[in-house]
Amino acid sequence: MEYKLLSKIKGPEDIKKLREDQLPDLANEIRDKMIHTVSKNGGHLSSNLGVVELTIALHRVFRSPYDKIVWDVGHQCYAHKMLTGRAEEFDTLRQPGGISGFTRRGESEHDIFSGGHSSVALSAAFGIAEANKRAGSKAYTVAVVGDGAFTGGMVYEALNNAGHAGKGTRLIVILNDNEMSISKNVGALARYFAMLKANPQYFRLKATTENVLNHIPVVGRPMAQGIYNVKTRVKNAIYKSTMFEDMGFRYMGPIDGHDIPHLIDALEGAVEADYPILLHINTVKGKGYSVAEKEPEIFHGISAFNIETGEKKLGEKGFSEAFGEYISAAAAENEKICCITAAMTLGTGLSSFAKRFPDRFYDVGIAEQHAVTFAAGLARGGMLPVFAVYSTFLQRSYDQIIHDCAMQGLKIVFAVDRAGFVGDDGESHHGLFDAAFLNSIPDITVYAPTTFAELKTAFDKALYKAEGPVAVRYPRGGEPRLPAEYLPSDADFDYFGDPEPDVALVTYGRLWSEAIRAKALLEEQGLRTGLLKLNRIKPVPKAAVRSVMGAKGVYFFEEGQRFGGIGETFADKLCKYGFRGEYVSTGVKCEFCTQNTVEGLLHEYKLDAASMAALATERQKER
Amino acid sequence: MEYKLLSKIKGPEDIKKLREDQLPDLANEIRDKMIHTVSKNGGHLSSNLGVVELTIALHRVFRSPYDKIVWDVGHQCYAHKMLTGRAEEFDTLRQPGGISGFTRRGESEHDIFSGGHSSVALSAAFGIAEANKRAGSKAYTVAVVGDGAFTGGMVYEALNNAGHAGKGTRLIVILNDNEMSISKNVGALARYFAMLKANPQYFRLKATTENVLNHIPVVGRPMAQGIYNVKTRVKNAIYKSTMFEDMGFRYMGPIDGHDIPHLIDALEGAVEADYPILLHINTVKGKGYSVAEKEPEIFHGISAFNIETGEKKLGEKGFSEAFGEYISAAAAENEKICCITAAMTLGTGLSSFAKRFPDRFYDVGIAEQHAVTFAAGLARGGMLPVFAVYSTFLQRSYDQIIHDCAMQGLKIVFAVDRAGFVGDDGESHHGLFDAAFLNSIPDITVYAPTTFAELKTAFDKALYKAEGPVAVRYPRGGEPRLPAEYLPSDADFDYFGDPEPDVALVTYGRLWSEAIRAKALLEEQGLRTGLLKLNRIKPVPKAAVRSVMGAKGVYFFEEGQRFGGIGETFADKLCKYGFRGEYVSTGVKCEFCTQNTVEGLLHEYKLDAASMAALATERQKER
Repeated sequence: MEYKLLSKIKGPEDIKKLREDQLPDLANEIRDKMIHTVSKNGGHLSSNLGVVELTIALHRVFRSPYDKIVWDVGHQCYAHKMLTGRAEEFDTLRQPGGISGFTRRGESEHDIFSGGHSSVALSAAFGIAEANKRAGSKAYTVAVVGDGAFTGGMVYEALNNAGHAGKGTRLIVILNDNEMSISKNVGALARYFAMLKANPQYFRLKATTENVLNHIPVVGRPMAQGIYNVKTRVKNAIYKSTMFEDMGFRYMGPIDGHDIPHLIDALEGAVEADYPILLHINTVKGKGYSVAEKEPEIFHGISAFNIETGEKKLGEKGFSEAFGEYISAAAAENEKICCITAAMTLGTGLSSFAKRFPDRFYDVGIAEQHAVTFAAGLARGGMLPVFAVYSTFLQRSYDQIIHDCAMQGLKIVFAVDRAGFVGDDGESHHGLFDAAFLNSIPDITVYAPTTFAELKTAFDKALYKAEGPVAVRYPRGGEPRLPAEYLPSDADFDYFGDPEPDVALVTYGRLWSEAIRAKALLEEQGLRTGLLKLNRIKPVPKAAVRSVMGAKGVYFFEEGQRFGGIGETFADKLCKYGFRGEYVSTGVKCEFCTQNTVEGLLHEYKLDAASMAALATERQKER
Repeated sequence: MEYKLLSKIKGPEDIKKLREDQLPDLANEIRDKMIHTVSKNGGHLSSNLGVVELTIALHRVFRSPYDKIVWDVGHQCYAHKMLTGRAEEFDTLRQPGGISGFTRRGESEHDIFSGGHSSVALSAAFGIAEANKRAGSKAYTVAVVGDGAFTGGMVYEALNNAGHAGKGTRLIVILNDNEMSISKNVGALARYFAMLKANPQYFRLKATTENVLNHIPVVGRPMAQGIYNVKTRVKNAIYKSTMFEDMGFRYMGPIDGHDIPHLIDALEGAVEADYPILLHINTVKGKGYSVAEKEPEIFHGISAFNIETGEKKLGEKGFSEAFGEYISAAAAENEKICCITAAMTLGTGLSSFAKRFPDRFYDVGIAEQHAVTFAAGLARGGMLPVFAVYSTFLQRSYDQIIHDCAMQGLKIVFAVDRAGFVGDDGESHHGLFDAAFLNSIPDITVYAPTTFAELKTAFDKALYKAEGPVAVRYPRGGEPRLPAEYLPSDADFDYFGDPEPDVALVTYGRLWSEAIRAKALLEEQGLRTGLLKLNRIKPVPKAAVRSVMGAKGVYFFEEGQRFGGIGETFADKLCKYGFRGEYVSTGVKCEFCTQNTVEGLLHEYKLDAASMAALATERQKER
């Protein structure tokens, strides 16, 4: 497709120059560019296709960046990026050094708040709106939040706070209702939104309704004790009839989110209110691309695919899938096992478990805090709950893991997916914190398998041997091919090589295959090299530390935050046991890693085989 | 008072043996015992006085522990403890080895879930109810949740999930509405609850209302486009008129929470429903003790006081107060400064700030997640936000600090109160995690002042010098008296003593005064002793580490979790710089510390002066 209109849009002001009847054509061009780019680079497709018209309407009505548009999560910001001066470089989407798949403050003045995690936009937007109000600015702040994100409790914390702000607060919340929270949105709230949508004329009828109500007589006399004014009741009920109005917002909607003129009308109406507004719009996830409309979950976040057929390249089997197979087999044997996901059924490999054991499968919405404490309740009631979650999202449950699991010694198994670098999703999605934050929690056990066989062993131990909470963490993607002589055992650690080597390399998880290759490189240089793999990283096995006490130099490599990480715990134990050789730990040091391939990131942070060998060689030369 | 009735209650079954007309007398006895015990031991008074009748009614209707009563937070469990076999030992409340001020699973089979943190009970209760349902049990699970706790987002996450469960789920949520969330409950939700209460006959009128509504004719014809059935609308509106019904619960209430027969009626009604129920009751915080009724916030959590006058012993000035004075003075100078609390105005020392700068003061409810991201929004909008929060509650914002503050480089100042041991509140309230979890976050700066003068210096740096987010952490209580020669400077660390000592003691925060005394003890034994105080603990200053490189033995002491803590970072740096002496770090190792005095805890965890000296002496002998 030739991008006749899009190529003229250098910034939001250019959208205002188009005739209204040109806007649907602009939408088509944007969609075409999205589909083509994502089919090559991978990315979030369904959510982005759903908000093309909304994005056009927003930039037509508001003046970004004076008015602030805050995209929740940011996995729906592609049209926004194209319309704010980034259409030409859009083909670098999610590539190393290219534009991010999420809003990133450093990328454009139109990216008001960096995204990635769900349900935060309203909190941020209210803060911005409040600051603007205090500064006397007339700018509007708009938060675009999906119905899925409304299952996250932060949205209510923010509604409770912002709904109190009242007149003069120029805050507009757009509830982008596509009946999805990555997976199909299943909670009570989804049912409630559907109920609201069953009254499609609500917004326009409001004035009329008032008129009608003023003519209802109260028939009969309330027969109960106490005075009861039905008419007042009815008016209150209708004017306070949505939970958003209960929370202090004015509710408008639902509006067809693919009808640009209606959207513009509604936004202009919202602007006039000078009051916190909740505008409910209906969109179709995957809109305009039939295969994505049919299977929006698959096209939510996808790798490269064939545009004609929608088929993606069949990748190798990943850890998520290996976990899914394991847990289904385990659940067939043990009816106490149940699985919990926070809206990530497909991503965590639980699709077949969900089909096979529907009554033992809980999708709690994007609600990691509740997920953990709900699991604690299930455990307290005698079940054996497994919470499958991405490392980056488990961060949100830190307090619940401490207070509701570990402090109470409750057995919950955490299947921590996407641990380590995730690649192209970038800084908000890398799983670089879990090892460190779990390390700080008493009485939790953490395993870090490298292979599928080890994954199975780790979960066997987690379910049936370990006491209290247990986490099993594994990376995005498939298992490495390991030489037969370096396959991990089912012990808590494995040591390979000379007991008193020149160099001992210590690591865990995915980096094991790098360490094996580093050993070869070091031995080529004549350095006797030992290899220590921690299969259990919390607690660090004492015997593992003792196994390298004879080395001249010990080098620890960790695909995670260095501060507070396992490498520091290892240092502390070495000191305690009286190690007098050299020790250096390498991890991600005080930095948020941007998007890159996993290989690129391993190299950048000196965690690949060549860097491992180079560090050890250099330090041994200095001795 | 003679506890004639209470002394006969050995367990919940004994309550059922009393005549209904004896129950108010039982309530009086419980209140008397509460007031007397708390006046001596300190504790939570207002919330406990408010639920005496509710607790009696619950144990009259339900069979604990077969039926499960889950108390949110647990700061209202005193009557429950007295009625479940713990009346006699109740005078050991909050004492070392005595009964806990919160529910504790290890203490009684009637304490179903350990408490301490807010807004988790519904998640846990739904998990338990679900497990019971799966096991075919007919047991009820009751969650008692204050209106304050409803400002925490987890409650909505749980409502969304549980409201979907429907028939057969024996879950009863009691909304204990006392218009407080420690401080006066101020959000939109509080207004909404007040609106519900303005219809006091709602519960009883329901049947009648239906009858009335069936006789309303629709007068006139809806004039708008589309069909609009007012009658159906009205019925829906009334039957779906609470947000709880929107979320899939049956709503009952409001009920007078001090009227035992009404409470029993309502609970029996709820039992019949076989459906998730939300029962709204009104209680008065501090009920039955006039000084507490008048000032419920002061009597929320209180130290020992005079029963006649309600006066508590004037304690020494604490860090909270010092912070409050500092930040009011700073805000008078700089109108960008604003303060945020999560329902802890009094506790964090912000009462006078709130009065003096009401338009720059935000009480967001018990919503630490929102607090942080809202602060990020304020910072993004140009304000200089300060979030004052207890260490233990900041745990809940871990992800928001990473994702919405640090990743975006936004300047938010965290005033982290109650860092370290808190004493009698016990395991759920110690501030033992913040140093470790903040340690894992890139680009954050953390100061740990020991004195009020240092507190001021640290906040000056936090507000005006440091970039990005900054935390200043300080303990509960007052400042230690330090010898003039060991006063900390305004540098990032201070070293006192011989540059090449036998022993170097390293610490930060409150433990500094212990280290000073340990030095004296060690020097009595002829050991040359250096003292290193870290004033900034993140990042650990490199020069601080280098300052002890000449010591034979370096001993680090930390009032916090050892794993992932600053002591391990220090070990790692010592190794990296080639230290070849002895190093031992001491912290709280893999344990949840129970209630005790701070002195008792310092001794128990070998963090007092004598233990410090003993460790160093012993290790030096071994050399």
